[in-house]
Amino acid sequence: MTLPLNPAMAATFPPPVMEARRWLQGVTFSPDRPLINVSQAAPVESPPLGLRQALAEAALNDPQAHLYGPVLGLPELRAEIADQWSAAYGGAIAPAQVAITQGCNQAFTAVMSTLAGAGDEVILPTPWYFNHKMWLDMQGVTAVPLATGADLLPDPERAAALITPRTRAIALVSPNNPGGVEYPAALLAAFRDLCRARGIALILDETYRDFDSREGRPHDLFADPDWADVLIHLYSFSKAYRLTGHRVGAIVAAEDRLAEVEKFLDTVAICPGQLGQIGALWGMRNLAQWVAGERAEILARRAAMVAGFSALQGWRLLGCGAYFAYVEHPFAAPSPDLARRLVQEQAVLMLPGTMFQPDTHPERQQQFRIAFANVDTAGIAALFDRLARVQG
Amino acid sequence: MTLPLNPAMAATFPPPVMEARRWLQGVTFSPDRPLINVSQAAPVESPPLGLRQALAEAALNDPQAHLYGPVLGLPELRAEIADQWSAAYGGAIAPAQVAITQGCNQAFTAVMSTLAGAGDEVILPTPWYFNHKMWLDMQGVTAVPLATGADLLPDPERAAALITPRTRAIALVSPNNPGGVEYPAALLAAFRDLCRARGIALILDETYRDFDSREGRPHDLFADPDWADVLIHLYSFSKAYRLTGHRVGAIVAAEDRLAEVEKFLDTVAICPGQLGQIGALWGMRNLAQWVAGERAEILARRAAMVAGFSALQGWRLLGCGAYFAYVEHPFAAPSPDLARRLVQEQAVLMLPGTMFQPDTHPERQQQFRIAFANVDTAGIAALFDRLARVQG
Repeated sequence: MTLPLNPAMAATFPPPVMEARRWLQGVTFSPDRPLINVSQAAPVESPPLGLRQALAEAALNDPQAHLYGPVLGLPELRAEIADQWSAAYGGAIAPAQVAITQGCNQAFTAVMSTLAGAGDEVILPTPWYFNHKMWLDMQGVTAVPLATGADLLPDPERAAALITPRTRAIALVSPNNPGGVEYPAALLAAFRDLCRARGIALILDETYRDFDSREGRPHDLFADPDWADVLIHLYSFSKAYRLTGHRVGAIVAAEDRLAEVEKFLDTVAICPGQLGQIGALWGMRNLAQWVAGERAEILARRAAMVAGFSALQGWRLLGCGAYFAYVEHPFAAPSPDLARRLVQEQAVLMLPGTMFQPDTHPERQQQFRIAFANVDTAGIAALFDRLARVQG
Repeated sequence: MTLPLNPAMAATFPPPVMEARRWLQGVTFSPDRPLINVSQAAPVESPPLGLRQALAEAALNDPQAHLYGPVLGLPELRAEIADQWSAAYGGAIAPAQVAITQGCNQAFTAVMSTLAGAGDEVILPTPWYFNHKMWLDMQGVTAVPLATGADLLPDPERAAALITPRTRAIALVSPNNPGGVEYPAALLAAFRDLCRARGIALILDETYRDFDSREGRPHDLFADPDWADVLIHLYSFSKAYRLTGHRVGAIVAAEDRLAEVEKFLDTVAICPGQLGQIGALWGMRNLAQWVAGERAEILARRAAMVAGFSALQGWRLLGCGAYFAYVEHPFAAPSPDLARRLVQEQAVLMLPGTMFQPDTHPERQQQFRIAFANVDTAGIAALFDRLARVQG
């Protein structure tokens, strides 16, 4: 490259999902053994007909659908989120404390831009969500790994020991990507107390909230009347309503934080896509029952994953929930090599642990993330059949 | 705010268009004198029926419309751009040299992230496009203002004198936002030669290209077989096809540059919205004739603006083209104060020059940008009628 290259960008690793897709190039799969792709967390079927009709109707007849909207999103969608979240979490969330983004990745980058610049630090439990790590890397912010134990749960005391004067936030994902584990309410409260005591932000990404196996609210953070002085909550509409291709996410945070977020979103997005927002709003108003059915199906698949791994020789299931199983394989081969062999020999695509752990964590070579949510129970049976054939 | 605030973000000014919208709050406009809003460059009518039908059809029946797509965009759209641009600019552009973004603002931020980090410098002619300045500010990159003369054209020799070892790029917008001026082909070639000689990038934002008053291609930069070693071209589908609410833009650059851009887009966007891309592709394949008609209409409005200002006492038209007139007012009041008075007394909303010039340029107090493209010639007549009533 003859032109300048920002060294922070050069040091950022390439998108793992795109890299994994390249492993498929030149490989042919027979019709009787098609590829089982458990690399990306994404519904593969279309949204329900009613939602598609609402999108089509807006595209045809709603002039607003084609115009710029407010930077922080459609007022009706912000109000609906405030209402439904207040009820679901047992707290008080105002519409002015809600912003809409072009997906949850953008929510993270927007929030993080308001918190941390080059030279600052942010604590991420490992294994981490790779796009969080990538954003921090390209911004020159140090991602400080917080190693988790065998249960993949982060420990607030270990986190406390990592806080320095440059620490700006701790970012948690629950249910976790890639680990699958659901963080207990008491653990989240402990992190909230730690962050509040140290004057740093607690970012909680709840993209997979709708598939949590627990009944009722997953935590009490919003029940704290002062939640906005420490908590920043992120959400995605991609999974609940199968809207991945429309890019709609949300931030819930203090109103003055959102005034800073607005600068970022105006500059990077101008506004969220209007049709996606119309779809998300329609989904919130009409699909609660349908989402409950989706959740039940995902929980059934999760049970199949748990049963499958308990019967699979040598492999260990470290975490399982929402869309993900995070596993340890029994072979000497490092996970990236094994991942490529799985494509060629078993027609299975999954992401190696190296994509979710820093270089300094040797366990990464033993790990895989399996995004099982879009594979039905027959497909899961086929997956285990193939994994059983893998030889070291 | 109790939580940390990134000082670079705190130092970034708030979104001008949103600030201007707030000036409307609490002001009532009578039905016989409705607001003339020339603050934002955006079509206000819907896309043609055929395009809306294509969107509705995809929303209903194309499963791909709801799924994640490739980070760099739909292959068919990248190929169509490569084909049409190669023909239009008389050069060779490959599909792998094209990336799709969620609007042209995102194209700028993605490209800039690959070029410049905190402490680097980027040269922007003034008056500048405020979102360019905002991105550089929030990234800790110094926006170095390149003052233009009475014709609003930047001078390559003055630019050369501003280049330091930290300079990473010069970013030009032609036809210019906010200035309206169309940069001559020879001027762009001179900037290209300067950037190549100094090893920095030439970023050329051609969002308003489709409304250039000149026939044929606006420059010969792509006819240079080595264009990719210096040029990064940006484009927006928002204006040509009235797709502002769908957020679709494009980058044309060297393939290895796009591999770096892909890291940014994966992290901030995952992929561009699918329906917007489907709409842009449909537009490219079906709306050439229609866009030619739109251009003729905009050029007629431009002529009305030129005629109107030549008859308006005391005001000076500094630049006029594409969507914008950039003007100097004759009053002692600073432009931000005058802008608020224009809302209240004349029911006209336009952005003051302070939003497009650094603090160090006193002329900002005398200037306005008028985004006239969505006002028909009757509306333009009404605009001049109101401007003629303004008193210092």
